[in-house]
Amino acid sequence: MNRSISEFALIARYFAPLATDRAALGLKDDACVLEEEAGRETIITADALVEGVHFLPDDPPELIAAKALRVNLSDLASKGATPRGYLMALALPRQIEENWIAAFARGLEADQTRFGISLLGGDTTATPGPLTIAITALGTAPKGVMLKRGGARPGEAVYVSGTIGDAGGGLQLLQGRIASSPGNEIASGNSFLIERYRRPTPRLALGKELRRLASAALDVSDGLIADLGHIAEVSKLSIVLEAEAIPRSPELAALWPGQDGIVRAATAGDDYEIAFTAPLSAGLPAAFSLGGVTVTKIGYTAPGDGVVLLNAAGNVVPVPRPGFVHF
Amino acid sequence: MNRSISEFALIARYFAPLATDRAALGLKDDACVLEEEAGRETIITADALVEGVHFLPDDPPELIAAKALRVNLSDLASKGATPRGYLMALALPRQIEENWIAAFARGLEADQTRFGISLLGGDTTATPGPLTIAITALGTAPKGVMLKRGGARPGEAVYVSGTIGDAGGGLQLLQGRIASSPGNEIASGNSFLIERYRRPTPRLALGKELRRLASAALDVSDGLIADLGHIAEVSKLSIVLEAEAIPRSPELAALWPGQDGIVRAATAGDDYEIAFTAPLSAGLPAAFSLGGVTVTKIGYTAPGDGVVLLNAAGNVVPVPRPGFVHF
Repeated sequence: MNRSISEFALIARYFAPLATDRAALGLKDDACVLEEEAGRETIITADALVEGVHFLPDDPPELIAAKALRVNLSDLASKGATPRGYLMALALPRQIEENWIAAFARGLEADQTRFGISLLGGDTTATPGPLTIAITALGTAPKGVMLKRGGARPGEAVYVSGTIGDAGGGLQLLQGRIASSPGNEIASGNSFLIERYRRPTPRLALGKELRRLASAALDVSDGLIADLGHIAEVSKLSIVLEAEAIPRSPELAALWPGQDGIVRAATAGDDYEIAFTAPLSAGLPAAFSLGGVTVTKIGYTAPGDGVVLLNAAGNVVPVPRPGFVHF
Repeated sequence: MNRSISEFALIARYFAPLATDRAALGLKDDACVLEEEAGRETIITADALVEGVHFLPDDPPELIAAKALRVNLSDLASKGATPRGYLMALALPRQIEENWIAAFARGLEADQTRFGISLLGGDTTATPGPLTIAITALGTAPKGVMLKRGGARPGEAVYVSGTIGDAGGGLQLLQGRIASSPGNEIASGNSFLIERYRRPTPRLALGKELRRLASAALDVSDGLIADLGHIAEVSKLSIVLEAEAIPRSPELAALWPGQDGIVRAATAGDDYEIAFTAPLSAGLPAAFSLGGVTVTKIGYTAPGDGVVLLNAAGNVVPVPRPGFVHF
């Protein structure tokens, strides 16, 4: 850290202005205080991002800030919660520059405005290791409406929002694993896919709509198949996915073609779309728009366990690795 | 990380058993849900510990767990809050062994039982850097009683709980900066001082009592003088401390003798005692027992700003560095 600024000056200059909610007490008290309300629930989630693991060292600070917030907001979205704010524990390498912090804070501010949330508290410390951003996000919902993973029943439809695999494609492009040159078919989709990796969209409006429709829900972070495996496990049933139904963007289909490409998309992770189950009695069509995003039917639940991927001929498609392995 | 265990197996084996509160949903939902209650407030604080910065690499895992929890519980104590539980984002170096995790989880479990709290959620990830433990702790209190830093008025008494500087002495001993041999006067106090560094005692019972007595409060983490500086700043007044009145253990007084020793004690940090102000109308004596700990009057508030340390002759004692500098 540039020694021209102390921890307290750093907080006063860059983070206190982000504490717009009165509950944050201006970050002066090392704690926030939220008034409780009868008939409501507070929903809390925590996700940490580590440089070199969850983002790349030369990613723009504004985008790292956005991603750190949005992966947490995505969790709240998948619960049907309305986000309120977040606490952030920031471990900063000593060599980080003040202008990096300034850009990071601008990224937080932009998304705070976009999503109507406030910094509520946190902690800033030095680390001899990589930049680490641990965010705890708080949301609220009327009592009893929160979406969980354990509510699915056999014989329901399985849906997912948006398109799957884009972020995985974007990461691959950023890591230079695919040679691309300006003007070729793949390069034309690069910026879209990279943006999908760097700046996921928490499906907050969809999550609220799903309170009245879905029996179970989660956000897709580790990979569609791996994450649906959590619904299958907690709800004690099997999920059958139709490979051809898994929604993919034209950009990703060009990058990752064929059935292999579908498997890669369904196991790449970082999508931050919402996957959910809904009873047939809800009468949902195979594709429709809800909360500002297209939602697509991709399969159904059945008795049993695990997740099975079927091709158009009804044969099982092998899935060597269902999702991202953390360690 | 020992590859014989996956992230999910790690959570199931070591962390799910710590999620004793129903609000944690058995850690199956990547979120916890807390029912709100009219007339109450939720108080939330976050503090991260980084290996090599806040604890030593060869510290026992049980004690690292205890310290990570207790520094957060100490924050809640100083607010007068009753702790409910915590979320934990754990960034684990790949070389860490499963038996380290097992011992760390045992440390958490012991303190969960001791303090009546539950793991509520969190995140486990790999890191190429040092072990990092980011804890967000939640407490509750009746509406309006939370203790803050900004409530002090000029002409009040300033108090602190327990003894000051022990942890700083313990750290110095652990770092081997003082040569000691078994049997000498210093060595006989080693285990007490080291224990005070490694396993701070959150003053939860005292904090509850202070709801009705204190005008401002905080916990002493960076150093008594530095932290009282926060009360002075936020309350917009000056604090005058009597050096001789600052309570020190006989073990620390032997390690750090004289007036220099008092300055070191008052600036060393890691005490996790509660410092507070109280109006004279409360009629508190110069020393008394409250919430299971001795509380000592160490000075008074006055108009002005900053913290001044006076010796017995009433002269100002120079304080080169009021507390721990984070970076």
